[in-house]
Amino acid sequence: MKKKFGKENSGAKQLILYGRHAVMAALQNPRRRIIKLVCTAENAAEISRMFPHVSIETVDRKSIDKLLPPDAVHQGFALYCQPLEPVGLEDICRQAEKLERCCVLILDQVTDPQNIGAIIRSCAAFGALALIVQDKNSPQESGAMAKAAAGTLELVPSVRVTNLSRAAEILKKHGFWVVGMDGYANSTIDKMDKNGKFAIVMGSEGAGMRRLVEENCDLTVRLPISDKVESLNVSTAAAIVLYELSKS
Amino acid sequence: MKKKFGKENSGAKQLILYGRHAVMAALQNPRRRIIKLVCTAENAAEISRMFPHVSIETVDRKSIDKLLPPDAVHQGFALYCQPLEPVGLEDICRQAEKLERCCVLILDQVTDPQNIGAIIRSCAAFGALALIVQDKNSPQESGAMAKAAAGTLELVPSVRVTNLSRAAEILKKHGFWVVGMDGYANSTIDKMDKNGKFAIVMGSEGAGMRRLVEENCDLTVRLPISDKVESLNVSTAAAIVLYELSKS
Repeated sequence: MKKKFGKENSGAKQLILYGRHAVMAALQNPRRRIIKLVCTAENAAEISRMFPHVSIETVDRKSIDKLLPPDAVHQGFALYCQPLEPVGLEDICRQAEKLERCCVLILDQVTDPQNIGAIIRSCAAFGALALIVQDKNSPQESGAMAKAAAGTLELVPSVRVTNLSRAAEILKKHGFWVVGMDGYANSTIDKMDKNGKFAIVMGSEGAGMRRLVEENCDLTVRLPISDKVESLNVSTAAAIVLYELSKS
Repeated sequence: MKKKFGKENSGAKQLILYGRHAVMAALQNPRRRIIKLVCTAENAAEISRMFPHVSIETVDRKSIDKLLPPDAVHQGFALYCQPLEPVGLEDICRQAEKLERCCVLILDQVTDPQNIGAIIRSCAAFGALALIVQDKNSPQESGAMAKAAAGTLELVPSVRVTNLSRAAEILKKHGFWVVGMDGYANSTIDKMDKNGKFAIVMGSEGAGMRRLVEENCDLTVRLPISDKVESLNVSTAAAIVLYELSKS
């Protein structure tokens, strides 16, 4: 599957977004360069009313199936477009300067596009300023990621950096507390003082954060889960952390 | 895919669990009736040491692929077993009698096995007493559900009822507050008094709770999400609610 559909996100000069939420959000995003929309006749009527300048190719559902990975739930929408322009860490730091409280999420070695999409959705829901990932190890924007993000890929800036430890240092200089999520930490996030600016670091579900990244954290905390359960899925854990930090 | 692999969970006299976590947890669960384990030679050596009484059939990875839905990440484990014995609502109510604070989760029309599995994992992580679903509309225990639950299907009692409104009434009589999650509610869950016993009702992501079910709620609350985002995935929302209620 990966090989066959590698084009969807490799090189990333062009990608195909699919599903109603993802496509509608992309069409509404002035920063998204649209190439063309391939959709069913019914959807075409709706879209041409809402977005008269979009180039539309009307086809049947099965033709859309063929453009996408197997089992992709496209709801009759496939949008050829360009990936979003990258956002720099300095842009996010500048934005944070004006705020007393804010949060960014740093993902270390999280590679599943669906998990990342779900995390982006939570970032949007709880107002995180940005998602920060390591360029080398993190998947590019893709249809599967956008689908899981349910339209929020257009709302949350993704910052791709070469070195996460270096990014953590920069954030610290801009007044962020760097907090690592670690299942073995002594204190839990609900007891943490939430006033301030936070960069939350989360590792992959299996391996957690890498040591070098962890050494850059000001503190580590865990979620207060039952000792009968080893861990939570990374996107579930991220949602809870972002919720907790967003609370007034 | 559904038709071809319908046997996996239909009728449910026998099902196949797969993946290391799900299978290990099932083997450790005295309430789980095991039929046989099909696994790779490497896994067989490990399992026969840990569980000497389990009947094991050693095969190669590809033979396991053929037993399972396409793309099932089985890690060399496929366990033929019986579904767990059903748990009655009265058992849960009896258990709750001894507690001052507790929580059950009621799902209305949530049908995706992976979402349900992920929700069960959060129930286990945050100590919910049970998951309550409507028998008619809710999928049976299955390999995909168990995989998403990462072993916690063995820990969290699932109660299947005929009528959710009736179940809500019974829970109220046993001292539970029935709280519906509703994106349009005025107050947010973080502001709610968490002392007591709670039955949280969640609907499907698209349609929400049905009106009849909502009418049985003592109150409705929402998650405090950005107005730029329509909703969260139901399993993400459930995790946050269960976390919030579990906090001391």
